[in-house]
Amino acid sequence: MKVAILGVGLIGGSIGLAARERLGAEVVGFDPSVGTLEAALEVGALDAAAGSVDEAVAEADAVFCAAPVNSLPGLVGAALAASGPETVISDVGSTKAGLVEEVAGLEGASRFIGGHPLAGAETAGVRNSRADLFEGARWYLTPTATSEGVLFDRLHSLIADLGARPQAVETDEHDRMMATVSHLPHVLSNALVGRAAETLAGGERHPEVGRSFRDTTRVAGANPAIWADIFAANASRVADEVDAVVARLQDASRLLREADPEQLRDYQQQAADARRALEQEVLEGGQLFELRLAVENRPGVVAELALALGRAGVNIEDMSLDPSSDMRTGAISLWVAGEEETERAIGIIRELGHSASAVSGGS
Amino acid sequence: MKVAILGVGLIGGSIGLAARERLGAEVVGFDPSVGTLEAALEVGALDAAAGSVDEAVAEADAVFCAAPVNSLPGLVGAALAASGPETVISDVGSTKAGLVEEVAGLEGASRFIGGHPLAGAETAGVRNSRADLFEGARWYLTPTATSEGVLFDRLHSLIADLGARPQAVETDEHDRMMATVSHLPHVLSNALVGRAAETLAGGERHPEVGRSFRDTTRVAGANPAIWADIFAANASRVADEVDAVVARLQDASRLLREADPEQLRDYQQQAADARRALEQEVLEGGQLFELRLAVENRPGVVAELALALGRAGVNIEDMSLDPSSDMRTGAISLWVAGEEETERAIGIIRELGHSASAVSGGS
Repeated sequence: MKVAILGVGLIGGSIGLAARERLGAEVVGFDPSVGTLEAALEVGALDAAAGSVDEAVAEADAVFCAAPVNSLPGLVGAALAASGPETVISDVGSTKAGLVEEVAGLEGASRFIGGHPLAGAETAGVRNSRADLFEGARWYLTPTATSEGVLFDRLHSLIADLGARPQAVETDEHDRMMATVSHLPHVLSNALVGRAAETLAGGERHPEVGRSFRDTTRVAGANPAIWADIFAANASRVADEVDAVVARLQDASRLLREADPEQLRDYQQQAADARRALEQEVLEGGQLFELRLAVENRPGVVAELALALGRAGVNIEDMSLDPSSDMRTGAISLWVAGEEETERAIGIIRELGHSASAVSGGS
Repeated sequence: MKVAILGVGLIGGSIGLAARERLGAEVVGFDPSVGTLEAALEVGALDAAAGSVDEAVAEADAVFCAAPVNSLPGLVGAALAASGPETVISDVGSTKAGLVEEVAGLEGASRFIGGHPLAGAETAGVRNSRADLFEGARWYLTPTATSEGVLFDRLHSLIADLGARPQAVETDEHDRMMATVSHLPHVLSNALVGRAAETLAGGERHPEVGRSFRDTTRVAGANPAIWADIFAANASRVADEVDAVVARLQDASRLLREADPEQLRDYQQQAADARRALEQEVLEGGQLFELRLAVENRPGVVAELALALGRAGVNIEDMSLDPSSDMRTGAISLWVAGEEETERAIGIIRELGHSASAVSGGS
């Protein structure tokens, strides 16, 4: 099997490594940057570097276009034009509808099937490539009614062989889902940071922020170049999600101005219920429990905890640190799946001399 | 010195422990729950349990009201009525303007000074009390023009002696600050969870959510009883913040519908700038750098990392785990303060065989 990779960053490089190591495939790559191609050869992501798209895709069984979102239509078109009727072309962009639509009008469009692996960060470069980057990761594929079945089957198998979990989904459903779970959180986080900077920055005192603010603003202003492209590619769907959230916030604002404690309790309970429903939807491994503990904020304390839990076979599903403002003490939240593991975890943490309590989850 | 504590939960109990251990104070407590009082005596938070508010505050130098927000006006009133002219009364509620206003009309109001320690969670109960809960924590105090100076001085010193960092602030400024950095993030998180549940839950496929969604929804639906009270006590200020964010989101929605990549890049860059400005405002210990790495998701892996970093003296300021949907692999983000520590951390992580790169921060 011959695999061609057009654009050799973290994702392209990791496809190359996995295809070579797991499938014994011959992997040829092309990238506009000669330095990137050299690095890709050095880390073993490619068998050979091609001098052009045409050279890379010649006689390839599968081609992965792994370039920035806005260059994908041109790149997919070039790959289709340069390849024969047996070659399947895919991509790894994070939005799908626009690309699939643009490609639909091209000669050979039935050989293109859009793809989106939920793994890695596009920024990290070929030197961080790993053969197991896609291990267990969801990898969406967006075949259309005109896609060639045999090529879809080949792509699907190839992706499963890379270690990922391929799943076919409609382009529109994919982009709406991403708008809700990925793009919308970034817009909300941006709005919160913008508002906080407006009211707090430059003031006389250092504002003290807690875990809720830290968690909620963590993705604000993420890589502007990449995110501008993602927003642009999914703009109307993200705008729809933003509008839906605006309507919810306007309701919340009205409720707040009425300041009725009963209604506010219902409001907060509805959010708790929605969160639990989502958690059960998303998690197959049992309900998540949040443990909260207070510790000294010193090098090694997280290690001690995690080590003790690891020794006891308790897996930490998620973690959030909240140092006090002088960085001397801090609260840690840990999320553990399942009631039994949670009780075990509490016991272990207390043995280490920390206070611990489960603050969410449960019945 | 005699300290009285009215309401002996985590905060009240921790004040008791700290006052006894650090100040050698005599601590008397009252709580409507006899079981709570017994537990407080057992853990050493009190020298004696009182049978009533009157008994507890008799001859106290300082009284801390540490009950739920909506019961504070009554409790502070009772404490003022039962105590003499030398007793300072304070509280630990998370909003201040409403309480201070209600108390202003009472006999002896000049002896009340509102307080709010940024530590702990009100839910966790007296058994989790710790003498060092306030170590390094900001503790806001809200004296007014009519507050007695000598009593304010005593309270200020007492709180510093408990290990906290007292800071006087206007009631209104305090509540606006809390609306922005604490209450608003909860409302946004609720809106996102509500929207996601509406569009995703009950669908045919399990939605796959990444770090941005997990981070941004972590506080959604937090303890409804407590949060209904907090929202009610600060309702109009929180509503103002929600309205300001709505205006920002409406702007973002317009920008998205125009879908101009240049403008979207400016939009995202502004959020990045705002975030950096806030970080510099909030953090005194140097700029935070985010490191992103990919690891196997198994018990012990976080420990390994944290241990190696701890050994090298690198402190982890914040951490966020993002397991793949089958929980077999995951990405970890670590935040480290300062450029030198960040470079050291990258070296250590790579020695452990993980890929690591700095994805934010830097120049």
